[in-house]
Amino acid sequence: MPPEPDVLLTPVQLQAVIDRSPFNRWLGMTVESVSADAITIRIRWREELISSPERQATHGGVLATLVDGSCDYAIAARIGHAVPTVDLRVDYHRTATPGDLVAQAQLVNLGSTLAVAESRITDMSGRLIASGRGVYLVGTPARPAPA
Amino acid sequence: MPPEPDVLLTPVQLQAVIDRSPFNRWLGMTVESVSADAITIRIRWREELISSPERQATHGGVLATLVDGSCDYAIAARIGHAVPTVDLRVDYHRTATPGDLVAQAQLVNLGSTLAVAESRITDMSGRLIASGRGVYLVGTPARPAPA
Amino acid sequence: MPPEPDVLLTPVQLQAVIDRSPFNRWLGMTVESVSADAITIRIRWREELISSPERQATHGGVLATLVDGSCDYAIAARIGHAVPTVDLRVDYHRTATPGDLVAQAQLVNLGSTLAVAESRITDMSGRLIASGRGVYLVGTPARPAPA
Amino acid sequence: MPPEPDVLLTPVQLQAVIDRSPFNRWLGMTVESVSADAITIRIRWREELISSPERQATHGGVLATLVDGSCDYAIAARIGHAVPTVDLRVDYHRTATPGDLVAQAQLVNLGSTLAVAESRITDMSGRLIASGRGVYLVGTPARPAPA
Repeated sequence: MPPEPDVLLTPVQLQAVIDRSPFNRWLGMTVESVSADAITIRIRWREELISSPERQATHGGVLATLVDGSCDYAIAARIGHAVPTVDLRVDYHRTATPGDLVAQAQLVNLGSTLAVAESRITDMSGRLIASGRGVYLVGTPARPAPA
Repeated sequence: MPPEPDVLLTPVQLQAVIDRSPFNRWLGMTVESVSADAITIRIRWREELISSPERQATHGGVLATLVDGSCDYAIAARIGHAVPTVDLRVDYHRTATPGDLVAQAQLVNLGSTLAVAESRITDMSGRLIASGRGVYLVGTPARPAPA
Repeated sequence: MPPEPDVLLTPVQLQAVIDRSPFNRWLGMTVESVSADAITIRIRWREELISSPERQATHGGVLATLVDGSCDYAIAARIGHAVPTVDLRVDYHRTATPGDLVAQAQLVNLGSTLAVAESRITDMSGRLIASGRGVYLVGTPARPAPA
Repeated sequence: MPPEPDVLLTPVQLQAVIDRSPFNRWLGMTVESVSADAITIRIRWREELISSPERQATHGGVLATLVDGSCDYAIAARIGHAVPTVDLRVDYHRTATPGDLVAQAQLVNLGSTLAVAESRITDMSGRLIASGRGVYLVGTPARPAPA
């Protein structure tokens, strides 16, 4: 199945980009959908990812990784490869209860040198757990960036 | 050995705070020093923490976790316990080559409701790899916000 | 005319909140619309607001003020009054050509202690010039700040 | 008097860079010192810059402009000219009472494409009012960014 219009990578291809990283594989990020508007990535809750034994909540570092990764891969879906992060910003809105989390990321601006993307992480009840943005170095492309 | 003046936790006590989290234990954060000015935390390089098989560099999500954690624990050293992160910002300066990393974190401002701390991550050659800041909730409001 | 449901302030009332500040009055922020989803504020281009005589573009500090203000007033529309900014983040996407700018701001999360809002600034052609987020203190601290 | 070693601009030359902007001139930023370590810029309190008639405190947008400007000019002092801001982050620590403010800015990292600088704003009593960071575009990459 070819990718959607304005997207260079299929979900299977994007999953392969993600799984090149041993740390990503350990976290267990699964691509759920890829479109020109947004990508969604799911992370499965498990005890190794929690921050405290009482709260059982997914660790803030895992959430930061998920914001960064989903923003990066939203860009990768459009340009064909992952890109270096320039900077990352994450807002933590509420403590995650045990359960899977879904990150939905979309491009804010795709320039010739830098791109900005944003991501929202929700739990299985649809509550907003964390959200944030990253700036990425996309370089000078060989051809014009998609509009 | 009691903690230094103006610090509530010894390195051993701070290590125990860190190690309550399964994710922190998996990452392997080791407290190297605790003072009123700054704390230092070391993370050992290993293959599970890298972002790509070619570069072997520590994953940006690990660096974000280290910035967040070291800022949080710099506050914990002063007030006696870890605190919830409000928001986190990380700048990535250069790719880490394989090797241990050290985070040095210090308080920027300690208020009654919120605290700000900053952290710098350097490699074994002293090169600045990443740096950033976090805002933390150290107090609770007297009354709820208007609906 | 009463405010919309879920909004406490009408555009005229929100304009009065904004105009209490001499700096806001000098900048010339005009409330264009207020709803539960978003507020829009317009700023008129004029030569005093530019950053360089060659480019004639609106100064980045004016854009930062507009991101902060529009986020703050999106919260004010919902809770009835302006709130202190905890932190502000602005991404600059492209240079503004001479012309009016419109900020559209909406709440990301409204908690009992803290609120997060985001804003997008576009020019008269609809191009995204800058965007960003602020964290705001909507609750009152329970105890006085330490000395 | 020539500039200090490792600095390209004297205070008088840096002041001329700042004063090219009409908005900067209106704010009234004065270069106090320029060295390879840090630059300091002073802003004079006046009623047009305040955020509310009760508090008489300098407006947060003025503080954001001062963080951005001082970071930008710390880079300008080293490379000879002002640079475009990629993104800006400001933490507001306490309300400024009426009085002059001083921004002290220094480079965090100077790369070939991007630079990061940070700034602290203090009042005349030395209290930290605000602080923050900016990322600046100092060059354009010659080839596509590697992943």
